[in-house]
Amino acid sequence: MTDKIKVAVIGASGRMGREVVKMVLEDEALTLVAAVSQSAGDIDAGLLVGKPASGVKLSFNLSDALHSSKPDVMVDFTTPQAVYSNTLTAIEHGVRPVVGTTGFTPEQIEELDKLCQSRSIGGLIAPNFSIGALLMMKFAAEASKYMPHVEIIEYHGDQKLDAPSGTSIKTAELISEVREELRQGNPKEEETIEGSRGGYYNGFRIHSVRLPGVFAQQEVIFGGYGQTLKIRHDSYERAGYMPGVNTAVKKVMTYTGMIYGFEHLMD
Amino acid sequence: MTDKIKVAVIGASGRMGREVVKMVLEDEALTLVAAVSQSAGDIDAGLLVGKPASGVKLSFNLSDALHSSKPDVMVDFTTPQAVYSNTLTAIEHGVRPVVGTTGFTPEQIEELDKLCQSRSIGGLIAPNFSIGALLMMKFAAEASKYMPHVEIIEYHGDQKLDAPSGTSIKTAELISEVREELRQGNPKEEETIEGSRGGYYNGFRIHSVRLPGVFAQQEVIFGGYGQTLKIRHDSYERAGYMPGVNTAVKKVMTYTGMIYGFEHLMD
Amino acid sequence: MTDKIKVAVIGASGRMGREVVKMVLEDEALTLVAAVSQSAGDIDAGLLVGKPASGVKLSFNLSDALHSSKPDVMVDFTTPQAVYSNTLTAIEHGVRPVVGTTGFTPEQIEELDKLCQSRSIGGLIAPNFSIGALLMMKFAAEASKYMPHVEIIEYHGDQKLDAPSGTSIKTAELISEVREELRQGNPKEEETIEGSRGGYYNGFRIHSVRLPGVFAQQEVIFGGYGQTLKIRHDSYERAGYMPGVNTAVKKVMTYTGMIYGFEHLMD
Amino acid sequence: MTDKIKVAVIGASGRMGREVVKMVLEDEALTLVAAVSQSAGDIDAGLLVGKPASGVKLSFNLSDALHSSKPDVMVDFTTPQAVYSNTLTAIEHGVRPVVGTTGFTPEQIEELDKLCQSRSIGGLIAPNFSIGALLMMKFAAEASKYMPHVEIIEYHGDQKLDAPSGTSIKTAELISEVREELRQGNPKEEETIEGSRGGYYNGFRIHSVRLPGVFAQQEVIFGGYGQTLKIRHDSYERAGYMPGVNTAVKKVMTYTGMIYGFEHLMD
Repeated sequence: MTDKIKVAVIGASGRMGREVVKMVLEDEALTLVAAVSQSAGDIDAGLLVGKPASGVKLSFNLSDALHSSKPDVMVDFTTPQAVYSNTLTAIEHGVRPVVGTTGFTPEQIEELDKLCQSRSIGGLIAPNFSIGALLMMKFAAEASKYMPHVEIIEYHGDQKLDAPSGTSIKTAELISEVREELRQGNPKEEETIEGSRGGYYNGFRIHSVRLPGVFAQQEVIFGGYGQTLKIRHDSYERAGYMPGVNTAVKKVMTYTGMIYGFEHLMD
Repeated sequence: MTDKIKVAVIGASGRMGREVVKMVLEDEALTLVAAVSQSAGDIDAGLLVGKPASGVKLSFNLSDALHSSKPDVMVDFTTPQAVYSNTLTAIEHGVRPVVGTTGFTPEQIEELDKLCQSRSIGGLIAPNFSIGALLMMKFAAEASKYMPHVEIIEYHGDQKLDAPSGTSIKTAELISEVREELRQGNPKEEETIEGSRGGYYNGFRIHSVRLPGVFAQQEVIFGGYGQTLKIRHDSYERAGYMPGVNTAVKKVMTYTGMIYGFEHLMD
Repeated sequence: MTDKIKVAVIGASGRMGREVVKMVLEDEALTLVAAVSQSAGDIDAGLLVGKPASGVKLSFNLSDALHSSKPDVMVDFTTPQAVYSNTLTAIEHGVRPVVGTTGFTPEQIEELDKLCQSRSIGGLIAPNFSIGALLMMKFAAEASKYMPHVEIIEYHGDQKLDAPSGTSIKTAELISEVREELRQGNPKEEETIEGSRGGYYNGFRIHSVRLPGVFAQQEVIFGGYGQTLKIRHDSYERAGYMPGVNTAVKKVMTYTGMIYGFEHLMD
Repeated sequence: MTDKIKVAVIGASGRMGREVVKMVLEDEALTLVAAVSQSAGDIDAGLLVGKPASGVKLSFNLSDALHSSKPDVMVDFTTPQAVYSNTLTAIEHGVRPVVGTTGFTPEQIEELDKLCQSRSIGGLIAPNFSIGALLMMKFAAEASKYMPHVEIIEYHGDQKLDAPSGTSIKTAELISEVREELRQGNPKEEETIEGSRGGYYNGFRIHSVRLPGVFAQQEVIFGGYGQTLKIRHDSYERAGYMPGVNTAVKKVMTYTGMIYGFEHLMD
């Protein structure tokens, strides 16, 4: 029998933190040993997330919590301001950090990598933990090598301010790195309604749909002689990130050094 | 036992005419009695379309063909230039015209209606015989009464010159006739890539995708609290019009007067 | 300026009741005048649903609440056991009932209709308030008259016990009432894996997909010469019923008698 | 400037052969130098496929054609009976074979590989040249490592005899090779209509839809917490194989030895 992985959750009362607590409590291969929150008070972490009492009360101080509970892994979805310091603290205690944020500089990541190496532990920093979204982007880039005619359609709620979405632009960048130079469409094409052909990006088009009821969806369509290939990811809610975090918690036990980007754990 | 409906096909050697000849030969409720073509010569209409000989040779002259074969219905997908005169000829012979074209003036249609009434026969003129496309447009308009947040995405081959497509504009018009006034989206919305939000039409958006391998597809999406409704029509080839023509040939036997628009036969 | 419609919500602390309270508070054409709950205690209805205080505290007794607040409409999503009595009480007070349940007998509906008539008020009892789902079913039945080749695919969460879903069976019934008799598929068709062709219903097939992450989705696909027509409804969460309830609250003000089935309000 | 690749097409008057001839004539990087057919007579290969005259008349004898035209590559979509002998002949002439068939034994492939090696030329034998379908299968297998909850829906014309399709079974096999053991769904699940949950394959389900108007489509759906990932391939016609053949003709110039399976050229 394998030992369970001992997990500490930082920012346990935040929107993402609660989802992480739930996920840890629901996986028999994991055990919650600490839950840190600076705002939620002296209550049981299980009760906080609408589950039975877990026996783990919320802690106020990260360092104390790591010292007394000796976790294998710390999961941190707090603010960009706090995570760098939290990550240093974790590594000092020999605890593997799994961090969801975009706020680190390359120099910070390099430094954290060295610290992880010196303690012989792994770590992960990732801006996106949605396995489905990462697979969509990876497959889209790979398909564009063989089927270079492509368009992207992304769907979000009707109150979103910016178009196109960050994920669609990231997808377009990944495609552009590997796709042959190609200006698609008929050179004499004319729009009778301006904008109907979508936004132009490096030879192809991105279309942004905004409708109430939609959370976040994206479809990448490839066309060729007599066929189309579609890769579509539909995200319905925040909990969609949890399978990625779960995988990260398990994989971070198996390597040494700090890795940036969840996609590098998907071999 | 019901008698078969006797059908004459005009422009039998054209792209649409051949499909009509095939359709008539394949339906046991119909019988081909004449096939007129001014270019294809003295051959059997069945052989012309890759089927066994039908016993009907192509005729050169419409009036002679109608006189000798006494059809119940004439189907005409020839040129806008020719159909008006053909339709007059058919009605004079007491033959019900089923015509696929957009070239008639309102005055011509009114005159042809009177002629049909005076002969106590039915007739049909229709710009679109695709039952699926007509249902899509009808349902889209109806849905927009209850779910006014809507966007249209249409897909065509990458060599198409104009965007958006005629069908998508027709759909947008039908929606606009019944949908409440509504300017969708966040008023502060910004495009970081121009055109990504698509073409603006009366408060909502139309997106035109152009990819090789696609013939003609359209999806109308409605969004509301926690739900989306999608109505999608995929057209793969010209033969998709034939079920509509088939229905028209049968329905035109059951009423008196000239009807404009296939949708009026779909009660 | 039109007067606001005064609404009482019964079962205000239940899962659906909370959504109704939220919906009423968010619509400027409606005003919340009473919220009845037998379990939630003496708190403000707005606070209960995570909104600012509404000035309406939860009431314990329905009859008292209706007497003192004089609502125009009562919305009731409580248990099948309770709704009949609640509905009688509402009508006695001249309050129009909008009820979401399946538990009434035809005799009860008839009796409630007479009572509504005698008080000259409207009422609505409906098993399904999802406008999108009702439109999907309506359009599917209508399309099957013209494109009789049809299959249904429905998607639900992987822990759902029964297959196919109630909505898919209801859709199949509505299709069967209007579609011509037709046994689809090749008569010599063989399944090399049993069940792969789905469940047989009156000549066509129903397929039930069960996957984690899915709430409730259904697609009805029609096939014909060279084309397909798809009608798809995706339901992402419970709140998807609220636009229907909102419409019902407004429409029930405009007619007399008890109507069964929300679709009859969609003319 | 790169030299054009000289191509010979065997079985040039067959359904696939004609598509290959067209494809070669349309690509400026390729030049047609021979077209062999044992049935079509002494006509120009371009005229045969509805294009302008190509200057290449159909040949009757393969060996003579290869001897006089000295092609770089031979493309062969003839019968399983003929291809082995054709492939031997090509290699003897130092011509790279690109062969679309399933009829070879492992021993034959090994022998042909040795012969290619000894002549220092490449060769390819592939049962499926649809790039889109191959990408779909590859991505589906890869996704199942990360999102093990999966179902397959495949769509074909309503006269197809067998269900599920060969491609869906191949996809299910590839998924099973890498996916963790998992019996999906609720163990207490019950079908009220037998077969509605589809065909069972190694813990997951395959659904076969059969409708007129559909050529060949497949969707592989993965579900996880709050998200779904879909990979869909729509094949509209035979010409959909040509981009794969085109790639093969170019890649076969770049390696030595016989490769089995087009997917191995997609690195």
